[in-house]
Amino acid sequence: MSKRKTIVFIARSLDGYIAGPGGEIDWLDMVANPKRDDMGYLALMDEVDAIIMGRNTFDFVANYEGPWPYPKKVFVLSNSLQSVPEHLVDKAEIIKGTPQAVLNSLGERGLHTLYIDGGVTIQSFLREDLIDEMRVTTLPLLLGAGYSLFGDMDKRLTFEHQSTTVYLGQLVQSRYVRKDIEF
Amino acid sequence: MSKRKTIVFIARSLDGYIAGPGGEIDWLDMVANPKRDDMGYLALMDEVDAIIMGRNTFDFVANYEGPWPYPKKVFVLSNSLQSVPEHLVDKAEIIKGTPQAVLNSLGERGLHTLYIDGGVTIQSFLREDLIDEMRVTTLPLLLGAGYSLFGDMDKRLTFEHQSTTVYLGQLVQSRYVRKDIEF
Repeated sequence: MSKRKTIVFIARSLDGYIAGPGGEIDWLDMVANPKRDDMGYLALMDEVDAIIMGRNTFDFVANYEGPWPYPKKVFVLSNSLQSVPEHLVDKAEIIKGTPQAVLNSLGERGLHTLYIDGGVTIQSFLREDLIDEMRVTTLPLLLGAGYSLFGDMDKRLTFEHQSTTVYLGQLVQSRYVRKDIEF
Repeated sequence: MSKRKTIVFIARSLDGYIAGPGGEIDWLDMVANPKRDDMGYLALMDEVDAIIMGRNTFDFVANYEGPWPYPKKVFVLSNSLQSVPEHLVDKAEIIKGTPQAVLNSLGERGLHTLYIDGGVTIQSFLREDLIDEMRVTTLPLLLGAGYSLFGDMDKRLTFEHQSTTVYLGQLVQSRYVRKDIEF
């Protein structure tokens, strides 16, 4: 039996966008967070062995001012990127191949619990039914347009709801695990 | 000050669809509901003065076998429909015009608290910022394709989260009221 556990942890607008049409993420800070509640992020970082993200997310994070946010190794899923910036060589590594091949390769290296990040990457894993758990935080606004968290798929995927927590009175975080449900 | 209160009460998949690509709504029954919890529907019916829905939703409900589900007058927003079926003449009425004109017209008749139903109708009201409250129930599945609850809009709309209730351990219902939030 596979030891694999892939986890999505992401915030979206009520209409399902993870960024506005120009990539805007200012709305992620729409709710005041004076005590800097991490809303489960640090627990997730403790739990996972590594992080898989796409090229777009990596470029964004690599260019972001401020401390590097990942305490675990980041694997950048990219068939075009040749190398990571000099200052990130011990933090990030490029990996190529299909989602399944990437999971196999990381599994052989003892990396089983994986945080899957970035819209394109999440969608490509979901299309192959390779996401085991989703922790989705919904913010109380309609963006009206932008980059969707979820994309078109040929088949339905059912999940089991595990728990829901409301953070800061405004952010609804629900946890779902993949389970085939007959109905 | 307007006495108007427009309320959306609707279920959607985790990826934001209210029906599958062929109009499928079988997934609304994916979670066993042996005690037939109405999940707030009857309280809503008590609360509202009338219901506004679009042509598509009306056609669907009018052709549905089983008892007529609305204890309040239904207004069918349609510029093409000329009359309602004979057996529904005391239950439903056709109304024409823009969302604002419809609300004005119903307000003059003393109908202020209104349940707004159907994807196209909800979207047309949201585009004119005419929705005061949304009660959205999210089911634990990805449909992959279908009819979206929300549509493209030119501007953002912020809401205030009021409460979240989990029904049957699986269905996450969140209540939002429209409020301009500065951030």
